[in-house]
Amino acid sequence: MPDTHESGYFTEDTSAEVVIARNAKAPDARLAEVMAVITRHLHAAVKEIEPTQEEWFNAIMFLTKTGQMCNDWRQEFILLSDVTGVSMLVDAINNRKPSGASESTVLGPFHVADAPELPLGSDICLDQKGEPMLVKGRILSTDGTPIANAKIDVWQANDEGFYDVQQKGIQPDFNLRGVFRTNERGEYWFKGVKPKFYPIPDDGTVGNLLKGLGRHPFRPAHLHYIISADGFETLTTHIFDPDDPYIHSDAVFGVKQSLMAKFEPINSGKDIAAEGMSGPFFRVEHDFVLAPAR
Amino acid sequence: MPDTHESGYFTEDTSAEVVIARNAKAPDARLAEVMAVITRHLHAAVKEIEPTQEEWFNAIMFLTKTGQMCNDWRQEFILLSDVTGVSMLVDAINNRKPSGASESTVLGPFHVADAPELPLGSDICLDQKGEPMLVKGRILSTDGTPIANAKIDVWQANDEGFYDVQQKGIQPDFNLRGVFRTNERGEYWFKGVKPKFYPIPDDGTVGNLLKGLGRHPFRPAHLHYIISADGFETLTTHIFDPDDPYIHSDAVFGVKQSLMAKFEPINSGKDIAAEGMSGPFFRVEHDFVLAPAR
Repeated sequence: MPDTHESGYFTEDTSAEVVIARNAKAPDARLAEVMAVITRHLHAAVKEIEPTQEEWFNAIMFLTKTGQMCNDWRQEFILLSDVTGVSMLVDAINNRKPSGASESTVLGPFHVADAPELPLGSDICLDQKGEPMLVKGRILSTDGTPIANAKIDVWQANDEGFYDVQQKGIQPDFNLRGVFRTNERGEYWFKGVKPKFYPIPDDGTVGNLLKGLGRHPFRPAHLHYIISADGFETLTTHIFDPDDPYIHSDAVFGVKQSLMAKFEPINSGKDIAAEGMSGPFFRVEHDFVLAPAR
Repeated sequence: MPDTHESGYFTEDTSAEVVIARNAKAPDARLAEVMAVITRHLHAAVKEIEPTQEEWFNAIMFLTKTGQMCNDWRQEFILLSDVTGVSMLVDAINNRKPSGASESTVLGPFHVADAPELPLGSDICLDQKGEPMLVKGRILSTDGTPIANAKIDVWQANDEGFYDVQQKGIQPDFNLRGVFRTNERGEYWFKGVKPKFYPIPDDGTVGNLLKGLGRHPFRPAHLHYIISADGFETLTTHIFDPDDPYIHSDAVFGVKQSLMAKFEPINSGKDIAAEGMSGPFFRVEHDFVLAPAR
């Protein structure tokens, strides 16, 4: 029985090696590689933590209840990945950008695939609630060339921090969503509403974990973008309001310095008229730089 | 906003530090300590694995389905802990024994609290199925002194590898379970049936994981013991059949060299009569040494 002779018996010292050796004949080589890394870190973590049997059982029950919170509308394990920074780390690993390209951040759970394509300048706020906002900017390549006909898929929470899909029957369908195409100068612009911070769902195991850690569940106000163009890598990102109270403590660690926009209040009649708006509004101007396709 | 200034923005390099710094104000200090260790190892593992977004999502769904397999009769996350060696590691950490004391192993899911107390020599096999077995030995302190009136709670699978609680209506209630007390010489003995190897439940996510890793789900044949006595640490352990086909590849890593018993076939009429048995049987003789209470 070669397993034992090769790897010896399971002890505190040998535990990870014995478990990894057991997987030596795995038909799925990537799975074996992944499980070797997980086993090594899991055993090292247990040795550092030295959990009591009761703590171990509490961890088992935490994971069990996290799975049982999940349904078609709620994914508590993704929330757990989010609040532990794992989602952002996986995003970072899969979206390393060349110098000068705009950075990515997490997609989040509120994107819908079939938002309407709208003419530049359209107002995506269909219920006129909240403070008006004008968003504009350019899509550029890393050498500064404007990208014409780039596709810009935007979505945002409303002035109370809710997405349309969270308030079906309260907000109009496709409220605060739209798909735009840049003009020949690489420009885009549309109207929306100043977004508000909002909590991730915090009535489950992840919310309890955050409470135990003294953390709040809020994400700072932001706009979501997916930007794509032929010959370029698709960019999934947000821009953030740097004046948001939670800008330095996003519950899911999505904020990056390069993703700060400026939400500039425009109040003078002349400036309002110059932008073709009908009253005071917030102006957000932000360019994005796409990396060349690999 | 001190968080940012202290820990900086989230990047691939800083990810674990940023997440750990966020938990600095945790009201539950032990939780923060545990989460710091988990965060450090989790981020290190993700950086080594470099999962694709699809692999990350597969991991999310594996954990979700593992939680959703659990019910009052099935605990798939404990199985996951078992097949990754975590349960045995937690057991080892919580049961470090002084030199000379018998080693522990996992409790397993099949113990029942209210098994009947029986006279020494009783047969716990209530349905006469399988090959008869006589188990005997002594309970000793680390200085070799026999311990009188030690309580020995034993349970075992039958000759087909099933516990009574898995075959309600097929096996008699409390089949192959009993509680015994050592005599004044520290001796115990009882009759049972030669146990057989059996699979852990393998029709869920953990069974699929084992298949992907090229591993079988079997535990080698064993007898379970919980041994307790005033002034000594309670010992939860097994003894194993060293001739079992799975003795070197227990799916849950429960085997230790010191827990090997000998299942000796006794066939001569004289030897059978000397032990007061009525036909051929297996003799298992195993002493246990209890550590002094801390």
